[in-house]
Amino acid sequence: MKSRSKIVARYAETDQMGIVHHSVYPIWFEVARTEFIRHAGMTYTEMEQAGVMLPLAGLTCRYFYPAKYEDEVIIEVSISKFTPARIEFLYEVYNEEGRLLTQGTTVHGWTNLELHPINLKKHFPNIYEVVKHAQEDE
Amino acid sequence: MKSRSKIVARYAETDQMGIVHHSVYPIWFEVARTEFIRHAGMTYTEMEQAGVMLPLAGLTCRYFYPAKYEDEVIIEVSISKFTPARIEFLYEVYNEEGRLLTQGTTVHGWTNLELHPINLKKHFPNIYEVVKHAQEDE
Amino acid sequence: MKSRSKIVARYAETDQMGIVHHSVYPIWFEVARTEFIRHAGMTYTEMEQAGVMLPLAGLTCRYFYPAKYEDEVIIEVSISKFTPARIEFLYEVYNEEGRLLTQGTTVHGWTNLELHPINLKKHFPNIYEVVKHAQEDE
Amino acid sequence: MKSRSKIVARYAETDQMGIVHHSVYPIWFEVARTEFIRHAGMTYTEMEQAGVMLPLAGLTCRYFYPAKYEDEVIIEVSISKFTPARIEFLYEVYNEEGRLLTQGTTVHGWTNLELHPINLKKHFPNIYEVVKHAQEDE
Repeated sequence: MKSRSKIVARYAETDQMGIVHHSVYPIWFEVARTEFIRHAGMTYTEMEQAGVMLPLAGLTCRYFYPAKYEDEVIIEVSISKFTPARIEFLYEVYNEEGRLLTQGTTVHGWTNLELHPINLKKHFPNIYEVVKHAQEDE
Repeated sequence: MKSRSKIVARYAETDQMGIVHHSVYPIWFEVARTEFIRHAGMTYTEMEQAGVMLPLAGLTCRYFYPAKYEDEVIIEVSISKFTPARIEFLYEVYNEEGRLLTQGTTVHGWTNLELHPINLKKHFPNIYEVVKHAQEDE
Repeated sequence: MKSRSKIVARYAETDQMGIVHHSVYPIWFEVARTEFIRHAGMTYTEMEQAGVMLPLAGLTCRYFYPAKYEDEVIIEVSISKFTPARIEFLYEVYNEEGRLLTQGTTVHGWTNLELHPINLKKHFPNIYEVVKHAQEDE
Repeated sequence: MKSRSKIVARYAETDQMGIVHHSVYPIWFEVARTEFIRHAGMTYTEMEQAGVMLPLAGLTCRYFYPAKYEDEVIIEVSISKFTPARIEFLYEVYNEEGRLLTQGTTVHGWTNLELHPINLKKHFPNIYEVVKHAQEDE
């Protein structure tokens, strides 16, 4: 499955170079990840209420071309790796002309509310299946 | 009591006008408020661990002159009002030349961890006394 | 004229109280203000390219009820005051049940790109008319 | 050369997991990078005023252990790669007990004010020498 989220660059997200600050992209990734999970059939909020957290273990981001204030960007998200212990998402940010601005990944560990690692398949088989399906579904 | 906190403007805090974005000042106020409370003899973290929260009920901010990247500013904090239900802080942000950049206030209600209002004097007399002392102390 | 903007609360916008941090609302106001101006018939970007800036002179915000992660809020914006030197916007943030969460105002001075005050009516009569119309239009 | 910067985690930097949000670390890296350059003998502001920008081309971050509100962290910065076209910084974030919380890198291209790539050695030999010295100096 691949989800597509639309975001408009905020004034507060620009810096004095006149472009969207690089620290904003991880936040946009998160917005798109939230919508991906919703698209997969549950909400991030429900997942946390069930007792599952997804803290980041790793982040990469490559910046090819800047976004500017009021630019409308599209973020495509898919699952690039998935195990009972971890998940990796892949993000691609495009501008309105279809130009690739940024590409990134986030790796997350599945944890309980105390941020201790869990085996998702064993402890939350329902959530595991929803994610598994989202990964495989074309 | 009046505390003085020093903050250096971050690049990420600037916007495309080339100045520190106006939404940053409430965050700076919070940094300075944290230091004020520490100065008063406890920490905000200890206060929350004791079961007391201080969510905002109101915010005002007047902007006289902008701060720029790498500017070192001084934030002066004092308590302008204090009751068992509420507290108001006053903030003044100065640059290195002593020019007043921004002036603001925040009003907070004393609440428990579920964000329900409490009477601080009744339920947390120790914290009430610490704050009372910080207000009166010159 | 009154514009209505829809925003979904981001994870990064929450704090350890489990609610949207108070410093986020001025950013949401700005997003809604951007859409208001677009609704009025120009874009903020065009305005800046024409040589007009709108730095903040004042901000007020009252917090009645918190927003949480993934909450969808509606922000209503209107012009509450307008002169050739200044403009004041009024914001009301509602949740999906129509409950008023936050109410705020921002006051801005009309300036040139060097952030010096200008008389908008005199120097940019076209923009003045667009704004005047947006204020009066019901 | 290796610089060491001290940062105290801000309340606004926490999220509803009760830890510093992952998007904050790139901002902390930037604060530490600013101090590194100052330590090397010039300021980032002077560099930009001379006509040199350092937009990000890449970012990586690995998260080992979370920081919490009011935690005082130390960020160590060094230059891991340096050419006339690019520079890579390495960051390590430690808490007060010396535990490694986060490790990251940022890659930047040297550009002019229009964000076009430049050969730093050729166009700004003085800045090139300052950076070269900072890289080599133990």
